[in-house]
Amino acid sequence: MDVMQVLHMNEGNGETSYAKNSMVQKKIMSIGKPIIEEAVLDFYCTNSPERFGIADLGCSSGPNTLLLVSEIMDTVCRKCCQMGCPPPEFLVFLNDLPLNDYNTLFRSLPAFYNTLKEDKGSGVGPCFVAGVPGSFYGRLFPRKSLHFVHSSSSLHWLSQVPPGLDSKTCPPLNKGKLFISKTSPPGVLSAYALQFQQDFTSFLNSRSEEIVPGGRMVLSFMGRRTTDPSTEKNCHQWEFLAQALQNMVIEGIVEEEKLDRFNAPYYAPSGEEIKAAIEREGSFMVDRLDILEVEWDGGSCNNQARNGMLIDHNLNGAHRVVKTIRAVVESMLANHFGREIMDELFRRYSHIVTDYMSTNRTTYDNVIVSMTRKSY
Amino acid sequence: MDVMQVLHMNEGNGETSYAKNSMVQKKIMSIGKPIIEEAVLDFYCTNSPERFGIADLGCSSGPNTLLLVSEIMDTVCRKCCQMGCPPPEFLVFLNDLPLNDYNTLFRSLPAFYNTLKEDKGSGVGPCFVAGVPGSFYGRLFPRKSLHFVHSSSSLHWLSQVPPGLDSKTCPPLNKGKLFISKTSPPGVLSAYALQFQQDFTSFLNSRSEEIVPGGRMVLSFMGRRTTDPSTEKNCHQWEFLAQALQNMVIEGIVEEEKLDRFNAPYYAPSGEEIKAAIEREGSFMVDRLDILEVEWDGGSCNNQARNGMLIDHNLNGAHRVVKTIRAVVESMLANHFGREIMDELFRRYSHIVTDYMSTNRTTYDNVIVSMTRKSY
Repeated sequence: MDVMQVLHMNEGNGETSYAKNSMVQKKIMSIGKPIIEEAVLDFYCTNSPERFGIADLGCSSGPNTLLLVSEIMDTVCRKCCQMGCPPPEFLVFLNDLPLNDYNTLFRSLPAFYNTLKEDKGSGVGPCFVAGVPGSFYGRLFPRKSLHFVHSSSSLHWLSQVPPGLDSKTCPPLNKGKLFISKTSPPGVLSAYALQFQQDFTSFLNSRSEEIVPGGRMVLSFMGRRTTDPSTEKNCHQWEFLAQALQNMVIEGIVEEEKLDRFNAPYYAPSGEEIKAAIEREGSFMVDRLDILEVEWDGGSCNNQARNGMLIDHNLNGAHRVVKTIRAVVESMLANHFGREIMDELFRRYSHIVTDYMSTNRTTYDNVIVSMTRKSY
Repeated sequence: MDVMQVLHMNEGNGETSYAKNSMVQKKIMSIGKPIIEEAVLDFYCTNSPERFGIADLGCSSGPNTLLLVSEIMDTVCRKCCQMGCPPPEFLVFLNDLPLNDYNTLFRSLPAFYNTLKEDKGSGVGPCFVAGVPGSFYGRLFPRKSLHFVHSSSSLHWLSQVPPGLDSKTCPPLNKGKLFISKTSPPGVLSAYALQFQQDFTSFLNSRSEEIVPGGRMVLSFMGRRTTDPSTEKNCHQWEFLAQALQNMVIEGIVEEEKLDRFNAPYYAPSGEEIKAAIEREGSFMVDRLDILEVEWDGGSCNNQARNGMLIDHNLNGAHRVVKTIRAVVESMLANHFGREIMDELFRRYSHIVTDYMSTNRTTYDNVIVSMTRKSY
């Protein structure tokens, strides 16, 4: 699978669009907000550039896209006001893969500029927004052009399916599955772990060129608390999709070979894997790393959930989960299995998820890592 | 008409798309190429920045979009090679209104980067391309971030229809017409001239903040040799569209009021108007100003044409002209008159243009003005 040419959130503003189905991602952003604020304020203790370069990597398109950029600008301007210095010019780079729906995103910009003017008036510096299509696993921006980099719900997507799992000539290694599973042979686990290490290192390496010394980066993405990547919590979203597809294989709707040949370009690393990669690459210092639990349907983990009690996940909750996941993974699945089976696939998936959610607590682990570009 | 929310070249890659119908614009670019090259080389006599910021204003989407950017990068790299210095990092900003088809444009970028790598290898510096949606009549880029600004076939579009002509309450001033015409009252001519002066001044003012001292700007757009803006050559494209619409009014397909209320946000200034505006604004020095003739169907004005002999414009030529104009003006006309009459309108327009081209030489006047940002 050529991830660059396939992966994109569902476009537009329709029923199955990402714009209409990204409450979980919004929730994750709101959880990360205080950590971003802390990093921005800390940066301003020792720096106050005339031009403040912000990049949002994996910005997608929809109501979430400019949310955190707006918060970052707010924080900078409040700090400048406190310090008695004028706010900087903001240069905001919105990045995603070339297949992202930039048209819908760009059409929302005039309203964003208007809100900025109305809400913040002269308290905010001039702001220039640019879209930068390309993979964040390579260079995207000029040298030392960024002061703050942010990425939310994106870095769990790999640059490619691990090569050993994507070969058309070798026998399929991960039969009947879409991702790491309890039954996957060890080679599958190590191939995924290696691909993450390589990708994350390329990511850090590229950003180290682009971020000024002392600049900050806050990354928020799917991770896990356990060392074992095949724990149920880490895999069951893919497991349920695989189940739905297995049923369709049995009924002759999907070819078995097709299912055996699909592996998701996805990985949810442990905190240790992330820290080790950052240390090995060497350009960044980890300021903090948090792993937080987020409900599948975008709710926060309230006390009831923390106490291990089951929340009454109603049918609406399960539907919301399925629509959220569809908006994210449909481009890849449609490319491989054909667009025509998508409605049926997600109908079956919905049954499985509804059934599971009626008796189980359903949460993701989300990592937020905040780091500083070293100055040497 | 809210130009920002309406004007865009026809999107996609289909039959009526701008991408498939922009040969004239390509021709105009190729005519401007030596002037751009001259400006770049001249800039490099006294400057050699580590980062070279290029902006293409009104970039649209299609095969033309990256053509001149590519030429500019080529010229810079050849010059650097001659001077024995390493090529700079390129930061390329592609600007157009928010309704431009950035999706199609961005999807062509991976191929552009590949060609760059294959053709030019290490001879060209790293290149970062960003899309910047917004009106070039306001600020688009950070202060002093650009070294070379280029705009082709765009600055004849005004920021708005001159206010006196776009009022819903006053009686229509320019009945039965879409633009300045022989029968337009003097108020129409002066309203258009004033709107151009205001817009072009805002344009220069915004760019003067963004371009480094000594930086260059080459602008190529529709203009005229005559002082009188109502000369036939300057107006007949709009005149023929008005004719087609008048016929549709007579047949009851279009309301008369609708036609009377439409005026195009377009102006083709004289060389004197351009020079006067640049002088009055004060930030730029005109290095050269050329007015060149371009055939309607994208051919160059060869000797036969220059000798005043009629070229055998066949049916294909006229069809090409109509498709080119449709790709450019359809968004505005469909917004005002309704998408459902577009096929019929352009069918009628095609008859009128074919008839005219069978007995007349058909050329545009195109202005190319090259200028330098003053250093004080």
